[in-house]
Amino acid sequence: MHIGLIGLGKMGGNMRTRLRNAGIEVTGFDQNPDVTDVATLDELVAALPSPRTIWVMVPAGKITDSVVSDLHDRLDAGDLVIDGGNSRFTEDFKHAELLSAKGIDYIDAGVSGGVWGLENGYGLMVGGSAAQVERVMPVFDALRPEGPREEGFVHVGEVGAGHYAKMVHNGIEYALMQAYAEGFELLEKREDIIRDVPGTFKAWQRGTVVRSWLLELLVRALDEDDDLSEIEGYVEDSGEGRWTIEEAVANAVPVPTISASIFARFVSRQEDSPAMKAVAALRNQFGGHSVKKSDD
Amino acid sequence: MHIGLIGLGKMGGNMRTRLRNAGIEVTGFDQNPDVTDVATLDELVAALPSPRTIWVMVPAGKITDSVVSDLHDRLDAGDLVIDGGNSRFTEDFKHAELLSAKGIDYIDAGVSGGVWGLENGYGLMVGGSAAQVERVMPVFDALRPEGPREEGFVHVGEVGAGHYAKMVHNGIEYALMQAYAEGFELLEKREDIIRDVPGTFKAWQRGTVVRSWLLELLVRALDEDDDLSEIEGYVEDSGEGRWTIEEAVANAVPVPTISASIFARFVSRQEDSPAMKAVAALRNQFGGHSVKKSDD
Amino acid sequence: MHIGLIGLGKMGGNMRTRLRNAGIEVTGFDQNPDVTDVATLDELVAALPSPRTIWVMVPAGKITDSVVSDLHDRLDAGDLVIDGGNSRFTEDFKHAELLSAKGIDYIDAGVSGGVWGLENGYGLMVGGSAAQVERVMPVFDALRPEGPREEGFVHVGEVGAGHYAKMVHNGIEYALMQAYAEGFELLEKREDIIRDVPGTFKAWQRGTVVRSWLLELLVRALDEDDDLSEIEGYVEDSGEGRWTIEEAVANAVPVPTISASIFARFVSRQEDSPAMKAVAALRNQFGGHSVKKSDD
Amino acid sequence: MHIGLIGLGKMGGNMRTRLRNAGIEVTGFDQNPDVTDVATLDELVAALPSPRTIWVMVPAGKITDSVVSDLHDRLDAGDLVIDGGNSRFTEDFKHAELLSAKGIDYIDAGVSGGVWGLENGYGLMVGGSAAQVERVMPVFDALRPEGPREEGFVHVGEVGAGHYAKMVHNGIEYALMQAYAEGFELLEKREDIIRDVPGTFKAWQRGTVVRSWLLELLVRALDEDDDLSEIEGYVEDSGEGRWTIEEAVANAVPVPTISASIFARFVSRQEDSPAMKAVAALRNQFGGHSVKKSDD
Repeated sequence: MHIGLIGLGKMGGNMRTRLRNAGIEVTGFDQNPDVTDVATLDELVAALPSPRTIWVMVPAGKITDSVVSDLHDRLDAGDLVIDGGNSRFTEDFKHAELLSAKGIDYIDAGVSGGVWGLENGYGLMVGGSAAQVERVMPVFDALRPEGPREEGFVHVGEVGAGHYAKMVHNGIEYALMQAYAEGFELLEKREDIIRDVPGTFKAWQRGTVVRSWLLELLVRALDEDDDLSEIEGYVEDSGEGRWTIEEAVANAVPVPTISASIFARFVSRQEDSPAMKAVAALRNQFGGHSVKKSDD
Repeated sequence: MHIGLIGLGKMGGNMRTRLRNAGIEVTGFDQNPDVTDVATLDELVAALPSPRTIWVMVPAGKITDSVVSDLHDRLDAGDLVIDGGNSRFTEDFKHAELLSAKGIDYIDAGVSGGVWGLENGYGLMVGGSAAQVERVMPVFDALRPEGPREEGFVHVGEVGAGHYAKMVHNGIEYALMQAYAEGFELLEKREDIIRDVPGTFKAWQRGTVVRSWLLELLVRALDEDDDLSEIEGYVEDSGEGRWTIEEAVANAVPVPTISASIFARFVSRQEDSPAMKAVAALRNQFGGHSVKKSDD
Repeated sequence: MHIGLIGLGKMGGNMRTRLRNAGIEVTGFDQNPDVTDVATLDELVAALPSPRTIWVMVPAGKITDSVVSDLHDRLDAGDLVIDGGNSRFTEDFKHAELLSAKGIDYIDAGVSGGVWGLENGYGLMVGGSAAQVERVMPVFDALRPEGPREEGFVHVGEVGAGHYAKMVHNGIEYALMQAYAEGFELLEKREDIIRDVPGTFKAWQRGTVVRSWLLELLVRALDEDDDLSEIEGYVEDSGEGRWTIEEAVANAVPVPTISASIFARFVSRQEDSPAMKAVAALRNQFGGHSVKKSDD
Repeated sequence: MHIGLIGLGKMGGNMRTRLRNAGIEVTGFDQNPDVTDVATLDELVAALPSPRTIWVMVPAGKITDSVVSDLHDRLDAGDLVIDGGNSRFTEDFKHAELLSAKGIDYIDAGVSGGVWGLENGYGLMVGGSAAQVERVMPVFDALRPEGPREEGFVHVGEVGAGHYAKMVHNGIEYALMQAYAEGFELLEKREDIIRDVPGTFKAWQRGTVVRSWLLELLVRALDEDDDLSEIEGYVEDSGEGRWTIEEAVANAVPVPTISASIFARFVSRQEDSPAMKAVAALRNQFGGHSVKKSDD
């Protein structure tokens, strides 16, 4: 099997390696001349056997839009585009519609695993027609972790379903991370009682109810920096978390832990909180409680 | 009527004035020689007609404990102690029991109104026996706001009920403040759309669903500093908010907004968040996402 | 002044009355023949002096869209459309653009006050050009509460600003209601301590920090049904609350109390919670904890 | 090694088996004659070699208190009591002090793993003196999972530290469960998009960021009942979750996801929500919105 792969960054680059290791022929294209296999998109298209399969692994939003549009202009009926990036599932409807006008097929693939995917394989959630999914199963099999297929791969539904599932996956992920983080702070805070915070997390890796891969990663982080003193409590968030909240609200699904975890990230990035200025001002007004002046 | 008043700080001092303005005779005692009417607690006790009524208005916890103990040693059967401070309602059970052993009566009074109470009167929630409450009604009538008695005063139940109601009052207060504060941030954030944040709050004072006294105070604060730039978003919390959460948890009452408002205060006081360090560390581990170094 | 008013339901009907009481001439149009002043939209347009002013007070979304489109077809350059409904502020951009192509002006007006507006006046937040706002100020003055104009009316910014401010107002409103509601449950739960829940709320109306119009409404509700036993804990939500969350997420504004209040409403409407089924299932799996069978 | 084990329920019974399988001699005592090895506590004490080691595995609170008191009366200096139940860490201070007065040693052991512990081993977090922990290490080694000791066992600190760590563990566990549960509801809600909810969870078991033991248990639950239709969304909570909130509040640690998960459980057990009655009543008051009558 021979596929094209657009986007050879942290994720795409590793995926090319994993695919090749599994015997899949991959022609990669990236703007970065140091990593690309071909010089232009036209070259990529020309290099692939028909019907072509091209996996797109670029940042969601405008860049994915632009790549899909470029592919629409260059591909033929019967070709297949797979968006493996973190696109919003609603984008899939748009992309599939655009491509289908020329008879080009479309699959959306949610991909989880981060930098560890090269070694461990990637968890895959895909949306699209059964026939197309079947056709590129060798690619999915190469990317997914070893073990039973159904434990690392799922055909979730029609177009959009893969990214919807990935969005929910990431929403859950946000809340899981926040849960361990709250536990970390509860342990750290009582250093008079807890003499070995990293050792406590380490000991939770076997037998306990809270054991997980994220826990193992936290153990690794604490191995490197046992009180995380070198890291600032400043956390970015990406689209999936926000979309999860929006979908929850649109569908009347209560998501108190997922929303709490994204709000905690928002706060973590604020130098000063406008909301808490207002609360401080109110306390000062009714109780004469002193406030901290900004120039303190 | 002639009562004793222990504690002449921001609250107690104003209350003495309001009581005297209403024709109640007040002998005040405070450690601060500049404000006290008598030099010692013994003098205070000696100055009062029997059966004595002493209103205690000192910080909750050890200081209130100590004052109650001192009064226990000095008062006689038939005397009455009123704790008007912010004691936890469970303390009232203890204080009432101690005093009742000598036949001394006890009332707990939750007092709301802050520095505005001198002018507006104080909202009062009291716990104790009907007979005792009736006996000191002139004092309550002097302290409470003008208007129908039941709109500024309530006999909530037996001993402890006054402080329980005040605790819940303060829990609600925390969440109300946070609600306006979130709204303030939402308005501030879109200065491209909202050209007049203070004017918006000002306009909510009449006719709207959100009009309230706290809103009026926020309008005052914005009159003084229209973007609150002089105030830091650093907010203390006092016992009542925390006790409200504890009572909620003990009684299986869900309190998502009250807890959110107290957690927001906790976060506001942290220079760096241990929890968010942990989240940042986790993102770095699985995604290779960069972290901010503490010495950045 | 003579204006047209489209939509004569609970809100629009009262507004017509209040406007007429203030000496504004109003021609109202509604699908309901019992309340309308004219039989058709064409008649309404014909009845108004030029330049015309038409206030639209119909449900947000498709109905407002349709009315704006109908007006676009019938009005002339220099006429003015005011959307006083609960439209999303992003809709205003669309409506203003459509109308401006024909030279028709547009104002968005957030209106608060509910069924009490007839008597108390309506809190108004408007967006649009200064000239247009000035032109219809007599209408705003008639609708807004008595007292200083700036305490019941604000010109918040350009088109969209009025509805943005109203959206935030409603987000705050949700959280305020939830705050009192949590307090109510905390008081109700301890009937062993709190002997008079309605009396407690009643006593908070004067002097306390939590006094507000919503509190007065809760007192009214408890006057009618002292433990709310006749009301089910089932609560709808409308667009503004959801949009507030979406805007907050889009702008990285933490809104823990507003989101908690909307999630509480979602839960209130569920017969059974899928999420809590999952938690019950998990507890059963790891701990052997018994679950309630659905047919219990 | 020969130890006594008090409490042979779901946890204690399995632990006896696992200990015996590992070659530890165990004399068990339980009120239930069908499972006990000896008829009375006196017999248990008499059966053990000196210095005795007795592991207590009974419900936290009064029952543990009573057993510790009974052991205090029967044991000698140099004997050791291990509380492996879910006691609050503050209880450990009390128990250790009581026993130390007679020279009896004390260890608190947090034990995680539920019904799976027999097969997988139990995650152990212990508090106490290094010498005592060392002395009973063979017992801990028999109970903990296979693999490196530090991945399933930790000596967290002095007395109380084990149960503190277990409390935090359970707080985290609550939030993790809620996170997956919210994801489940988000997937279930969009059955138009997600055609295979159980398959999606199954596929998350390998390679993804959210893989964990709890996820595996959810997969098992969905294998048995693919939409959880047989289970009611009614969830109990136990002490640890509540204590976690109390400790968080006492130490000013923000725990938004842990608190959200416990509040969700509270709500799940309510037939009707007093708080939501109040919100419904308020909406009815200001907006004339209809309410559901309780007898609807």
